[in-house]
Amino acid sequence: MRYEELVIEGRNAVIEAFRSGKTIDKLYVLDGCQDGPIRTIVREAKKTDVILQFVAKERLDQMSETGKHQGVIAFAAAYEYASVEDMLADAAKKEEEPFLILLDSVEDPHNLGAIIRTANLAGAHGVIIPKRHAAGLTAVVAKASAGALNYTPVAKVTNLCATMKELKKKGLWFVCADMDGELMYHVNLKGPIGLVVGNEGEGVGRLVRETCDMTAAIPMKGDIDSLNVSVAAGVLAYEIVRQRLNG
Amino acid sequence: MRYEELVIEGRNAVIEAFRSGKTIDKLYVLDGCQDGPIRTIVREAKKTDVILQFVAKERLDQMSETGKHQGVIAFAAAYEYASVEDMLADAAKKEEEPFLILLDSVEDPHNLGAIIRTANLAGAHGVIIPKRHAAGLTAVVAKASAGALNYTPVAKVTNLCATMKELKKKGLWFVCADMDGELMYHVNLKGPIGLVVGNEGEGVGRLVRETCDMTAAIPMKGDIDSLNVSVAAGVLAYEIVRQRLNG
Repeated sequence: MRYEELVIEGRNAVIEAFRSGKTIDKLYVLDGCQDGPIRTIVREAKKTDVILQFVAKERLDQMSETGKHQGVIAFAAAYEYASVEDMLADAAKKEEEPFLILLDSVEDPHNLGAIIRTANLAGAHGVIIPKRHAAGLTAVVAKASAGALNYTPVAKVTNLCATMKELKKKGLWFVCADMDGELMYHVNLKGPIGLVVGNEGEGVGRLVRETCDMTAAIPMKGDIDSLNVSVAAGVLAYEIVRQRLNG
Repeated sequence: MRYEELVIEGRNAVIEAFRSGKTIDKLYVLDGCQDGPIRTIVREAKKTDVILQFVAKERLDQMSETGKHQGVIAFAAAYEYASVEDMLADAAKKEEEPFLILLDSVEDPHNLGAIIRTANLAGAHGVIIPKRHAAGLTAVVAKASAGALNYTPVAKVTNLCATMKELKKKGLWFVCADMDGELMYHVNLKGPIGLVVGNEGEGVGRLVRETCDMTAAIPMKGDIDSLNVSVAAGVLAYEIVRQRLNG
């Protein structure tokens, strides 16, 4: 388990953090700001023993890591990385086939946040990222995840291939996003599955790709090479959802 | 038709701009940078009468609008907004049912860029955005579109509802992304279609929603409210692709 300092910025992210029961240590709100979302935040804050301060815009701008605080910044007990075992235990508890999303070096925090958001809504049990060459769980990721980081566990592993091999022993199959792969509609994605998505520039690395059992391609009609990585992850995750819903 | 000044930043975006035949007026390359993509750009540049300058990193940083120039910035003949009629003519020429994506006030340029990229690869004939409360075709959008802006036309209209009503007369049906709508797999999305996606905060506005013929919901299993708007647009666009492929 690891801990990191966490700054939560923006109205939705702060409201979600309170609602999910996350421990907020300090809350800074723009002085004089009285609209609905801000009043909701202040009301939630007063239910807890958070230190609440009304401050000037300059102060918020200075503290902001994302530059988009929308008048509110919270300092939280830091996000905790989960373990892969926790994710499998969660799947077992829900009596669902495990569904994990593995990111091979996704470096853009907006994309990481958007993918955690997708994982949450597509019913995945967790997101696995490698320790090196990947965005960590920063304030930008938390904001981009729109609160999903409070619900969907993220594990950081030393070696993605080694983790995949361990998970294969536990019955998981791995499907790799690959534009030269089989059309995703023809790949059986119903069992216990890990969806592997590669980084923005080069896709999934060779070793990780070779560790996968299947490849799946999104149909592409256009002129350019690839979808945005968070869009590709979303389209593939929802193909898994569709196949599972079909029984 | 409107013109805007355009700065193209980043290797992929600049390479795509050259390859698609866009008129580049000036090209600035990081002095001493000799890797493959940069050499490709310089080679492409020399085929045209672009003004090529090798400059220091500080100069590039200063010119950069995105902060991510990757050693290359091009100034191009500006992007031209297309007309909706052009999009319909393109569909007719390809003997395809029209497929348009309409964005109701998507303000984040990264999301707009990612959606143009999705439109290109999903085979949509164009993207329609309203004049007010929407991101325009800036350098950030061009970079986020990974070159798709060179191929996929974008039209800017005064009133989204009025445009939709005109298009309905031409046989288009409009489907609105709405989490309270019918599950997307059960909505017939095969005909001439406009997919309407709403902004990051509030979804599709009431008037626009009421102008739609159908609503479609992405299945949601999780704890939070909504997907990132470019992911939602991608999942819905690919549901249209899937239904069309099924004949």
